[in-house]
Amino acid sequence: MSKGITKKEENFSDWYHDIIKEADLAEHAETKGSMIIRPHGYAIWEKFQNILNKKIKESGAKNVYFPMFIPESYLSKEKEHVEGFSPELAVVTHAGGKKLDEPLVVRPTSETIINKAFSKWINSWRDLPYMINQWANVVRWEMRPRLFLRTTEFLWQEGHTAHKNEKEAEEETLKILKEVYQKFIQEYMALPVFTGLKSKSEKFAGALRTYTIEGMMQDGKALQMGTSHNLGQNFAKAFDITYSNENNENQYVWQTSWGVSTRLIGGLIMAHSDNKGLVLPPKISPIDVVIIPIWKDEANKDKVLKKANDIKDSLSSFEVEFDDRKNGSVGSKFYEWEKKGIPVRIEIGENEIEKGKVVLVRRDNGDKLEVEFGKVKGILKKTLSDIQSKLFSKAKKFNENHIYQTSNYREFKDLVKKGFVYADWCGDEACEASIKDETKATIRCIPLEDNKPISGKCIKCGKEAKNKVIFAKSY
Amino acid sequence: MSKGITKKEENFSDWYHDIIKEADLAEHAETKGSMIIRPHGYAIWEKFQNILNKKIKESGAKNVYFPMFIPESYLSKEKEHVEGFSPELAVVTHAGGKKLDEPLVVRPTSETIINKAFSKWINSWRDLPYMINQWANVVRWEMRPRLFLRTTEFLWQEGHTAHKNEKEAEEETLKILKEVYQKFIQEYMALPVFTGLKSKSEKFAGALRTYTIEGMMQDGKALQMGTSHNLGQNFAKAFDITYSNENNENQYVWQTSWGVSTRLIGGLIMAHSDNKGLVLPPKISPIDVVIIPIWKDEANKDKVLKKANDIKDSLSSFEVEFDDRKNGSVGSKFYEWEKKGIPVRIEIGENEIEKGKVVLVRRDNGDKLEVEFGKVKGILKKTLSDIQSKLFSKAKKFNENHIYQTSNYREFKDLVKKGFVYADWCGDEACEASIKDETKATIRCIPLEDNKPISGKCIKCGKEAKNKVIFAKSY
Repeated sequence: MSKGITKKEENFSDWYHDIIKEADLAEHAETKGSMIIRPHGYAIWEKFQNILNKKIKESGAKNVYFPMFIPESYLSKEKEHVEGFSPELAVVTHAGGKKLDEPLVVRPTSETIINKAFSKWINSWRDLPYMINQWANVVRWEMRPRLFLRTTEFLWQEGHTAHKNEKEAEEETLKILKEVYQKFIQEYMALPVFTGLKSKSEKFAGALRTYTIEGMMQDGKALQMGTSHNLGQNFAKAFDITYSNENNENQYVWQTSWGVSTRLIGGLIMAHSDNKGLVLPPKISPIDVVIIPIWKDEANKDKVLKKANDIKDSLSSFEVEFDDRKNGSVGSKFYEWEKKGIPVRIEIGENEIEKGKVVLVRRDNGDKLEVEFGKVKGILKKTLSDIQSKLFSKAKKFNENHIYQTSNYREFKDLVKKGFVYADWCGDEACEASIKDETKATIRCIPLEDNKPISGKCIKCGKEAKNKVIFAKSY
Repeated sequence: MSKGITKKEENFSDWYHDIIKEADLAEHAETKGSMIIRPHGYAIWEKFQNILNKKIKESGAKNVYFPMFIPESYLSKEKEHVEGFSPELAVVTHAGGKKLDEPLVVRPTSETIINKAFSKWINSWRDLPYMINQWANVVRWEMRPRLFLRTTEFLWQEGHTAHKNEKEAEEETLKILKEVYQKFIQEYMALPVFTGLKSKSEKFAGALRTYTIEGMMQDGKALQMGTSHNLGQNFAKAFDITYSNENNENQYVWQTSWGVSTRLIGGLIMAHSDNKGLVLPPKISPIDVVIIPIWKDEANKDKVLKKANDIKDSLSSFEVEFDDRKNGSVGSKFYEWEKKGIPVRIEIGENEIEKGKVVLVRRDNGDKLEVEFGKVKGILKKTLSDIQSKLFSKAKKFNENHIYQTSNYREFKDLVKKGFVYADWCGDEACEASIKDETKATIRCIPLEDNKPISGKCIKCGKEAKNKVIFAKSY
């Protein structure tokens, strides 16, 4: 085990930050709350972007880019929105050597500036649905920064759509949640997740309803990994976005917005990593396999390099890193790629050449396998696919072992220290708030399905329960 | 000809803005100087990004992401840098509901914050060369905004590298200029360009030397399309970036930085478009071909759509847009895709089905070709390749017809109204400045090769000339 990484069981938070450091993912910049994303971290984000970008385009949205400076007055147009975001804003007051007449807010999200444009762009039912997306940086001033999870500036995509009626807007909200985000997180990030509706206190400022994807981390806490909002007609009314329908009547549009951010990388780390470092599911690893040629004897160097290169050439359909650096020991190379979570390592040295085999080592469970030269490609493909599904089942099993259900508030208080707890809730914000006060647990979501009350009585007040909901502590 | 687009010959600037509007590329946002990049414009930028990103990675640089907020004090560390950028800065003075102790500048470029990190990251000769790149938004306050060419916020990539010695830094500077930028602009954007050194008055604030790529627009003016800077040791000294060399001696690194931006799209428009709208070289067009099924008679609709779909399926190796929208006439569809510059249009209607042929129409020259169903794929491939090379030769010919050479200042003043002028220069900034005053022309670059004086005497003062340089008016 690496001496550079704190054990997960000893201090989860230190473990998390050690992994980020040792895997070369990110670091704090000197300006408080801001983060430098380093090469390996950014390469993972690029993988995320490529996959999500494709899925988002397939959903019908087109990419655009809006300015990051928003006139302060735009924000005030939707009352709940400005109240929600005001404490987190960064404000440009001076530019071009002068004090500005109207301060500019650095976008915390772009509903206001985008809806200002929608009011010009959307005129007729023929223009609907109107669906756009942008990849951008946003700023929400952060007092307790944590790499990837909470940083003042972060990278994300934000989708914004307008529809003819409430039904279409609701369908879009759920389609993005389930067909884009949930599929991406489950199939690519190998993480089974929980989807549901946010309670009023946790919904997006300005939305009618917020749906969320919650992932369980290895400390049993929840991470909100993505949200999709049904905005109703709130912004349509604030920005006067209307269309004339088939009968030539003027109607307000119904809208959605949805986003995932670099926070996903935090979730990836906390869901799969171990005490040796990062563990990457093959489908989102920037590198599938690292080949390490090993020579003890300068005389054999050329022979080993030649064979290792042949193996590399046979793997052109994979993302291969060929580590023939002269500096550093073989052990330190193993260690480096292990910390970075690369799914498979292939070792090839003098012994291997004699035997006509390479050694293939799995990052997820450390298994070593001798593979004949001619079979490397086939075995590698199978191994990567096996790692991907094993990581998912491992995480699924972890989830199952940390999901509880209770109707007893005393038991509840113990259980939320360990994982997610299904419990009944009356729907009253006061109960929600006092549970949070007493246990630090919040309602992560009201599940989309299977949300009928267990006992029928609120876990806190004992009055009639509306739903079974998921409680957990969270990031 | 479209009534929506001003003729290029009548008013070049109106023509430029009409094309942007009609091709759905971008528009001004309400905040002065800022731009909304619309779907077709952003799709072109994504093509640029994908190609350049690959080339930049092949050059050895890795992608990272740095915060956009830079403490004001960082900027002051390099004297020339802060003087150059101060008038263009946007400054965040308030955030999180409070006045900040130190204002934060929104990055106009990231040398300062990146070099702050380099001073921690670089220690030994083993760390060199250190090469990174980022895709980001930057802000330079703009008093005379012009879509794509000069906007307060723009998108770009910026590369930053550190090297052991001046020679390696110079090699990197020129490699990016010629192997990455020039090749991209020539081979993908189909635009022959001029490369060379900037005079002192035009170089990047803080650089030792700035190299530039200058493209000629259809009004004979120059557009600076990309720059690559040899920073020498200026930032290394300001930020104390040192490494210990093989002899364990402490040395300052030698650095470069380089960037291209959304400005390239402005160059693309002004280089190739005509009075019908945008003309896209196939290699950077987000859509290779648009297929338009045409039915007069509802009875034949299914037959036409089926055949058109078969053709579409046979073109799966291309980017195909299938325009079977019910709204709008066939003519308006032709017109829309023409304005958007899509290289090839395929028409298929009842007549075509009878003949067993489609009609293939080229955007660049309007040529129509009847192509048998079975040959569409092959002919399309050939046609796209032919359009790409024809656009390049057309631009090259335009260049050749608008490059002049003179040793006579009176003649010079006439010639710079029409295009680029090679003339001798003594190297004195005073001559450069008074030429600019009198003619609005500036030294675009001192060519890398073939820069020996013509007559040997400065075009302005008549004293001994150092170089033959390129003068032109510019954007």
